[in-house]
Amino acid sequence: MKARVFVGATHATAIPADDRGFGYGDGLFETMRAHHGDVPWWDAHWSRLARGAARLRLALPDQVRVHLEARRLLDGGDGVLKLIVSRGSGGRGYAPVETSTPTWVLSCHPLPAASPPDGLMLRWCETRLAVQPALAGIKHCNRLEQVLARAEWQVLPAPESHADEGLMRSGEGDVVCATAANLFILAAGRWMTPRIDRCGVEGICRGWAMAALAAAESRLAVADIESADAVFLCNAARGILPVARLGERAWLPHPQVLALQRRLAAEHPAFTALPTELS
Amino acid sequence: MKARVFVGATHATAIPADDRGFGYGDGLFETMRAHHGDVPWWDAHWSRLARGAARLRLALPDQVRVHLEARRLLDGGDGVLKLIVSRGSGGRGYAPVETSTPTWVLSCHPLPAASPPDGLMLRWCETRLAVQPALAGIKHCNRLEQVLARAEWQVLPAPESHADEGLMRSGEGDVVCATAANLFILAAGRWMTPRIDRCGVEGICRGWAMAALAAAESRLAVADIESADAVFLCNAARGILPVARLGERAWLPHPQVLALQRRLAAEHPAFTALPTELS
Repeated sequence: MKARVFVGATHATAIPADDRGFGYGDGLFETMRAHHGDVPWWDAHWSRLARGAARLRLALPDQVRVHLEARRLLDGGDGVLKLIVSRGSGGRGYAPVETSTPTWVLSCHPLPAASPPDGLMLRWCETRLAVQPALAGIKHCNRLEQVLARAEWQVLPAPESHADEGLMRSGEGDVVCATAANLFILAAGRWMTPRIDRCGVEGICRGWAMAALAAAESRLAVADIESADAVFLCNAARGILPVARLGERAWLPHPQVLALQRRLAAEHPAFTALPTELS
Repeated sequence: MKARVFVGATHATAIPADDRGFGYGDGLFETMRAHHGDVPWWDAHWSRLARGAARLRLALPDQVRVHLEARRLLDGGDGVLKLIVSRGSGGRGYAPVETSTPTWVLSCHPLPAASPPDGLMLRWCETRLAVQPALAGIKHCNRLEQVLARAEWQVLPAPESHADEGLMRSGEGDVVCATAANLFILAAGRWMTPRIDRCGVEGICRGWAMAALAAAESRLAVADIESADAVFLCNAARGILPVARLGERAWLPHPQVLALQRRLAAEHPAFTALPTELS
């Protein structure tokens, strides 16, 4: 992993020991698909970051500088680029400082493994997402729920450990998302995705897919997912991910999901290889 | 601030850029009152840390080594000692690694300012604590709710910004704690403190005070607090903190709270100065 740390405008050698990101998860992040040394969805990622920063009243570094350093780090290559921005050092205890200088870390990671050609195998997670409207939607760094949920099937013996992703419900029982992806279902000819006003993240690929499918936001129950005609997950690193199984329920590849993958490939150069593999 | 960073058994120069504490708040912390170079409540703090580590399936560093380094850092002095333990580096995305090496940071801070002699002035926070039984009780590093709550009165113009602490309710409306302290009330001759099974932290001073007062855990509503005969906050850094005001409601110093301060002073050497100031 290549990584570079900055404090404000200054390249730093390391994350400060009193950084609020380390102490409280007081920060935001973006996980972006890079292609040929740049990030095709850069503007959408930065917009979401700015919405999160406004919500947390957290200062962002200069966008032009971050973009420049991102391209430097990518050095013409492909991969997954992660940006973490914390509130930086300072403040007494939880009290934030209005004038704090953000710490930001750029890191470059290999492309994720290719998805199973027939689609993902999903499971239900026991760990719930707490209902917290003040933090819903933004991609903040308080992610212990996702860590616990992801660990549920990591510690199981095979074959129980064999799952590609897990679906998470809110504390109220609504289905919200996978641990690291948004969720879409097709029912009665209509595409739907869970609301993210009480928990969950406003994914960048989710936004793209909602527009492409004229999808509606809805409260969805477990039965809605299990009775759906088609299901896919999506995120900005991996694109559109058809779902093949969820427990006992199985789905064949759906033509509308394959068409959506082709459309994404036409609009986002990093995803051009995928539909050929799957069709 | 003096601070030292360690990765496993090794003294490190800085927090690694890919540390899961920085990325996800994937860690635990303890805030401890130090006295003459040691931590009188060390065992209780380490026990809570161990309970948190078991819940998160996170490896702790060697206790004897951490205690030794803590005493080295304190160098015979008084103050507040903070220990943060993160899961360290590694794992793909949210998936934790079972064999990860913890990163831990010890830092030493000045004693908190003396409390107002007549007692604290409190306010109600708008930010709620999300209900999350999987994380309730433990002192984990996902603390954005406390940061947002504490910021509520920091950004207000004086005199509205004048509050010493803020009380927080859960998403279900129960009163849980202050942003950085536990809460006790006296009603009908009985001491009570909110349950912390759905959110909130199992404070070390809370445990001490519950035993000292034979206090009961209870679900408490806003009206219970406002109609109480006495109210105090407590935490391990500041001890027993009498409450003088909450909005329009005022309380005179209560003899049972003053007696509890004297008892703490007799049992914990760092708090000996307080009751004299207040009596």
